[in-house]
Amino acid sequence: LHRQIYERFRLAILHGQLRPGQRVASARALAAQLGLARGTVDAAYAQLAGEGYLEAMGQKGTRVATGVIRLDRPRAAPLPARRAPPAVAAIAAGTPLPLQLGIPALDAFPRKLWSRLGARRIRALGLAQLSYPDPRGNARLREAISSYLLPARGIRCSADQVFITAGYGASLDLACRVLLRAGQRFWLEDPCYPPARRLLEEAGARIVPVPVDEHGMRVEDGIRLAPKAALALVTPSHQAPLGVSLSIARRMKLLAWAQSSGAWIVEDDYDSEFRYTGAPLPALKALDSVGRVLYAGTFSKVLFPGLRLAYLVVPPAQVDAFSRAVGRSASGCPDLTQELVADFMEEGHLSRHIKKMRSLYAQRRITLATALEEAFGDRIRVQLQAGGMHLLARIQSRRRDSQLAASAQRQGLAVQALSQRATGTHAGQALLMGFTNVVSKAQARELAARLRAAVGRA
Amino acid sequence: LHRQIYERFRLAILHGQLRPGQRVASARALAAQLGLARGTVDAAYAQLAGEGYLEAMGQKGTRVATGVIRLDRPRAAPLPARRAPPAVAAIAAGTPLPLQLGIPALDAFPRKLWSRLGARRIRALGLAQLSYPDPRGNARLREAISSYLLPARGIRCSADQVFITAGYGASLDLACRVLLRAGQRFWLEDPCYPPARRLLEEAGARIVPVPVDEHGMRVEDGIRLAPKAALALVTPSHQAPLGVSLSIARRMKLLAWAQSSGAWIVEDDYDSEFRYTGAPLPALKALDSVGRVLYAGTFSKVLFPGLRLAYLVVPPAQVDAFSRAVGRSASGCPDLTQELVADFMEEGHLSRHIKKMRSLYAQRRITLATALEEAFGDRIRVQLQAGGMHLLARIQSRRRDSQLAASAQRQGLAVQALSQRATGTHAGQALLMGFTNVVSKAQARELAARLRAAVGRA
Repeated sequence: LHRQIYERFRLAILHGQLRPGQRVASARALAAQLGLARGTVDAAYAQLAGEGYLEAMGQKGTRVATGVIRLDRPRAAPLPARRAPPAVAAIAAGTPLPLQLGIPALDAFPRKLWSRLGARRIRALGLAQLSYPDPRGNARLREAISSYLLPARGIRCSADQVFITAGYGASLDLACRVLLRAGQRFWLEDPCYPPARRLLEEAGARIVPVPVDEHGMRVEDGIRLAPKAALALVTPSHQAPLGVSLSIARRMKLLAWAQSSGAWIVEDDYDSEFRYTGAPLPALKALDSVGRVLYAGTFSKVLFPGLRLAYLVVPPAQVDAFSRAVGRSASGCPDLTQELVADFMEEGHLSRHIKKMRSLYAQRRITLATALEEAFGDRIRVQLQAGGMHLLARIQSRRRDSQLAASAQRQGLAVQALSQRATGTHAGQALLMGFTNVVSKAQARELAARLRAAVGRA
Repeated sequence: LHRQIYERFRLAILHGQLRPGQRVASARALAAQLGLARGTVDAAYAQLAGEGYLEAMGQKGTRVATGVIRLDRPRAAPLPARRAPPAVAAIAAGTPLPLQLGIPALDAFPRKLWSRLGARRIRALGLAQLSYPDPRGNARLREAISSYLLPARGIRCSADQVFITAGYGASLDLACRVLLRAGQRFWLEDPCYPPARRLLEEAGARIVPVPVDEHGMRVEDGIRLAPKAALALVTPSHQAPLGVSLSIARRMKLLAWAQSSGAWIVEDDYDSEFRYTGAPLPALKALDSVGRVLYAGTFSKVLFPGLRLAYLVVPPAQVDAFSRAVGRSASGCPDLTQELVADFMEEGHLSRHIKKMRSLYAQRRITLATALEEAFGDRIRVQLQAGGMHLLARIQSRRRDSQLAASAQRQGLAVQALSQRATGTHAGQALLMGFTNVVSKAQARELAARLRAAVGRA
């Protein structure tokens, strides 16, 4: 019985039905209410307190611990009768932690415009949208993407080559299903984006880590290590996580290798739109005259991740194989979100939003860097990358970056350690921090001070 | 060059940019416009006509053939300024073909209500919905499903056991990723739902077809053929496609086998809500006291397939493994559609809609059966199943059911042959026809007459 009470509380806390700091009934009151022995409730409370779910506050009673990590977002805010709730009411636990990587500026997303277009689109819901969607993606959205890619990324492709997926992971999974046979070698940048590594391993790839230096992936090392690899995954615009660009010489070498060996290159171009110094580099795909490059783009960074929409552009000769593959999996994305993004693009909102975010992120990047330098002085070296959504900070310390990151995480900062994304050691030690959601100088200073307190003195 | 013109037209027709019946420029005019030799355009037109894309109409010129199968839906209807367009404008080529299987009655879906809830929900979009969604699914929706399953299907489960996916295929794929190792045996009903078979084969399963008779899957045959199979996929409520129910004796035998051998059972309960004679049968999962059954439900039949939402209920002991698996794939479904379905369920609309559809489908089923019997007389035996969304018709003919189905398909009827879903021959020959979108007696008679003309005389 005490186990049942324990479980009820634990789940209620983890799922946000009981909030951090919220008072709970006293053991005596709860026992009376449930018709149980006081000792049963006491035992449950003791276990909950022992595991950190509840905190005794002496005479003030018992409350939900304030540091509890929640599994779920809380229930959605109650629906407004007519108008959107004030933004402050919506800032809930589902929002990212401070300094989290890879999340666009949520406060700067044009929610009103989006909601207006969305409401209009859902009111226009036709019978056609009720039936199964095209598993390759919505025709209008594929068209809008192919039109966008030429001016934005230098890529010339037809809408037929564009496949809509539920996210970058789904794009990568699709590419593996069509092109990878189990046991084949797969070049992966070192350091890398760890979820991609896990996904490729699950797909049966034998990962070949290829070191990255200031010119991007060391293609010559890849050729030396695994000349017959079947695939290579690269992030040429801003290497994830180092932020360097793949040099033109390496790009040409990579393409020549793929052409001569018959390998496939997957280009992950996740946040290339955000570049702060110099003009954006064209995509690697823009140079791919022989059809060896698959281009993976996403709306998670230029719009928002909750949308769950990404895309993969495949070479013309692969269109049929990918069409069959998506037809077999018989899934596809909801037409509603696809139509909405197509509207957003066709009406020019996407380009405007990206332009705005580019200058906003340039500011926020400097704001965070400045605050870090003020807080740490000589002990920090902030590496501003030419683009992207996070910065690298190298902090003088006797402790490893993973230990520093763990300390920061205990203080609620979503800082990541560079070394944990690396297989080899050449990438060195650094902390990765997202700057996109640092909304003010005051917040930047507060975060820098918290980080300094967390990582301690040298 | 003529190949390029040919491709342009072919794709434009397949993608709906050129509509069936639409006139195209004369070869002479097009040649002049493009600055090409007349012969080049003539060659392209000839090939297009030869393959059935274009039709010459003599002096009236050339037009897009009216029977062309389109790959894509046409572009969405233009957005209305404020109000929804009249329903008739929305009936486009994306709607299913007559007699198509597995599509709920699209005309009867409460689109206005849905749009109102959806517009309200999208206006309430909070910052939390912008970030990555919980890959296990929206907490409110999981809760709503677990509350729904007890009264509706006799299943007692916590929200934690419910995983939201992008469709039945995605549920099955998830189950395979967690539970199946390549090369393991997998019982599959014979006849079956062919996409499931393809998906399991791709996942590396060795399929063991287990015959189905009037009491459902012959569990004893499964045990004889592959006692050590790792998984079994069953459709106990209405076998797909035969429509029979798995008898209680076989259910107990199946569960006992799974318990003693350590196998997993995946219960595909796709349309069990629609039953016309007797009370709905509880799910197999309702009898699963030992946690060997994974229950796959979907919103494609009780709401609509374009929603792309389904769910998998896993045994408590498997919750952690499935949570890790969905965390790795890092995809998940858009929060917007999940919140909307949660609203729809919490406000009681789902139960009301199912109840309405149950009586509507009972009518439409009889309407189609009657029209078929009137048209074919003694030559047809219509098998009404106790539930589901399609009927079986056995037609006396010297031709095979696959030939009859092909003839019907050429006349635009989406009739399917039973034998094409079978591995063995015991299921016999029959045509499968969806009745859910047969909206009137007049339409039923027209379809029956078209079918009779298509399949010819005996």
